[in-house]
Amino acid sequence: MRRERAAQQVSALKLDACLITSLHNVRYLTGFTGSSANVLLFHDGNAVLFTDPRYTVQSKQQVNCAIHIAKGPLTKSLMEEVARRRISKIGFEPEHINVARLEGLTKALPARARLLPVGEGMIARQRMIKDDGEIALIRHAVTVNSKALELALKRLKPGMTETGLAAEIDYQSRKLGANGPAFDTIVAAGKRAALPHARPGSAKIGPGMVLIDMGAFCDGYASDMTRMVHLGPASPKYKRAYRAVLESQLAAIAAVRPGVTAGSIDRAARRVLKKHGLEREFVHSTGHGLGLEIHEGPRLGQNDKTPLEPGMAITIEPGVYLEGWGGIRIEDTVLVTKDGCEILTPTSKDLVEV
Amino acid sequence: MRRERAAQQVSALKLDACLITSLHNVRYLTGFTGSSANVLLFHDGNAVLFTDPRYTVQSKQQVNCAIHIAKGPLTKSLMEEVARRRISKIGFEPEHINVARLEGLTKALPARARLLPVGEGMIARQRMIKDDGEIALIRHAVTVNSKALELALKRLKPGMTETGLAAEIDYQSRKLGANGPAFDTIVAAGKRAALPHARPGSAKIGPGMVLIDMGAFCDGYASDMTRMVHLGPASPKYKRAYRAVLESQLAAIAAVRPGVTAGSIDRAARRVLKKHGLEREFVHSTGHGLGLEIHEGPRLGQNDKTPLEPGMAITIEPGVYLEGWGGIRIEDTVLVTKDGCEILTPTSKDLVEV
Repeated sequence: MRRERAAQQVSALKLDACLITSLHNVRYLTGFTGSSANVLLFHDGNAVLFTDPRYTVQSKQQVNCAIHIAKGPLTKSLMEEVARRRISKIGFEPEHINVARLEGLTKALPARARLLPVGEGMIARQRMIKDDGEIALIRHAVTVNSKALELALKRLKPGMTETGLAAEIDYQSRKLGANGPAFDTIVAAGKRAALPHARPGSAKIGPGMVLIDMGAFCDGYASDMTRMVHLGPASPKYKRAYRAVLESQLAAIAAVRPGVTAGSIDRAARRVLKKHGLEREFVHSTGHGLGLEIHEGPRLGQNDKTPLEPGMAITIEPGVYLEGWGGIRIEDTVLVTKDGCEILTPTSKDLVEV
Repeated sequence: MRRERAAQQVSALKLDACLITSLHNVRYLTGFTGSSANVLLFHDGNAVLFTDPRYTVQSKQQVNCAIHIAKGPLTKSLMEEVARRRISKIGFEPEHINVARLEGLTKALPARARLLPVGEGMIARQRMIKDDGEIALIRHAVTVNSKALELALKRLKPGMTETGLAAEIDYQSRKLGANGPAFDTIVAAGKRAALPHARPGSAKIGPGMVLIDMGAFCDGYASDMTRMVHLGPASPKYKRAYRAVLESQLAAIAAVRPGVTAGSIDRAARRVLKKHGLEREFVHSTGHGLGLEIHEGPRLGQNDKTPLEPGMAITIEPGVYLEGWGGIRIEDTVLVTKDGCEILTPTSKDLVEV
């Protein structure tokens, strides 16, 4: 079904086939999870997966299209197939092929064949709208993520380092069946929370704020959540900032429905922070799509014109960062529905002091 | 020092500057660990790092060259710098830039400026030879990896799943200070060991063979090791195959010294397996370099002509795979020295039955 829909686009572009080089797109179209493969997707919906002998057994188990195990370079096998089928107009994914590889392919092309770039994100656009199977997997990944945080926080004790807590989170997540974290788990305590993408360090988690941003891949699909925990009683400044960010996050979620642009969600979040005099401290966009990748379309940036559609899975994650003080971010994974949206993340957003 | 050496190459190519788009190369040259950055490296050794506002604080802490925080797209800021400096010949890394991005950059170039591909792996070649600081980090990553396996195996008990053991391994590794696994940890029990790149599954680890392939990133540098464990007494067939693979691995290690080609190491491993009638079951190359990436140059493939040099960190990992039966692989991380090599991995390679 996914392949049929993608093939319709290949056909609409009047191409004979499209060369799929993004491994995420390969997985999306064929189910193959290995680390090296290309797919030739033909205009009629047929496809051939090219991989190497390490994946002889695995590809047979996972893939429901033709398979070619390349003894040498994939490019050589690909071009033999192109020649054998006498096809000439072959699309490629310009965002997912490097300049050197394209040059190699171009040199190896049979005489009459040409390589033509397909429009930005041909498969990415299709992937933005999740089908029922994908939604179930994202739902599962979100549940595992929340459960892992709950279990890890039970083990949080004085003297634990940022790295130690991150390790607990990843461990609980794996034990709940995750393949692994969807990105490097962020645990940032105190002033370090001012770094939106902090790496956990050997700093002990002292009294004060802790920012935890975590995600899990389960069966290949990602979840993403940020929560704040405050060790000991929080200051009035922290409470004010927390409430401002939460108000911003809820306003953004309330704005999510089919037909509005991704940019309008970002503006809804930003409006609230401006009211609180915190708009300059919100240094990133409000969120992003997620699925087989932790960052997919749409991007919830100020000027993004992508209309939201039912089936999009997105994060809503405004935050404020004050160098020398700390930072606050609150993030849920949200599903766009027919009428509005469903917050998938079950974890409470009440201000937590432990 | 790294930047000076790289700049000499920029200068030798008669370029004004080189645009570094590989994040690993960015880290290698500047110390920056964020997820979005480009570097303009000038022929005189100066450099400017371009990143976005999420990394304002972090980049100041990590980077020892000029920093430009781009409010909009990096490409725009990059091209403003190119125009301001009136430079015209700018190299780029064809293996590390996708076709769409190069097109965007080309369109945005000031009138007199040109983008020129630099030879394959300009920085990658330099990165093959590790400096003392890098060797210390790899040594540490290897030690953490071995210690994590030791601790995880103490927790191995009947009924544990592949995923469960993989989770224990990753957890121990993180608690020992690793940033995370260097790749998805492989735990493949019984017949599943026939898949060289198996993903751990929900299968219980029963009596029989278990293949464990694991690595840790510590301060950004990778380690890599494969060990076999046999639950219960091993069959004569297993013992024969194990001894053949070990003999092959030791022969390959014995062949490592400066001046010989990477391909000759692969052939040394293959020769032994051929003697045992197992050469067709050895379906991958003998190893690879590692460092900031788990796979770097040189590749230890049959026809690779790269001469080994002191300071190269490589894996030696022959294996045999028999569909329907299982597989055996033994892998160490090895450092090429002036006289030969040093096996960094301390874990025993005796046949283990538990």
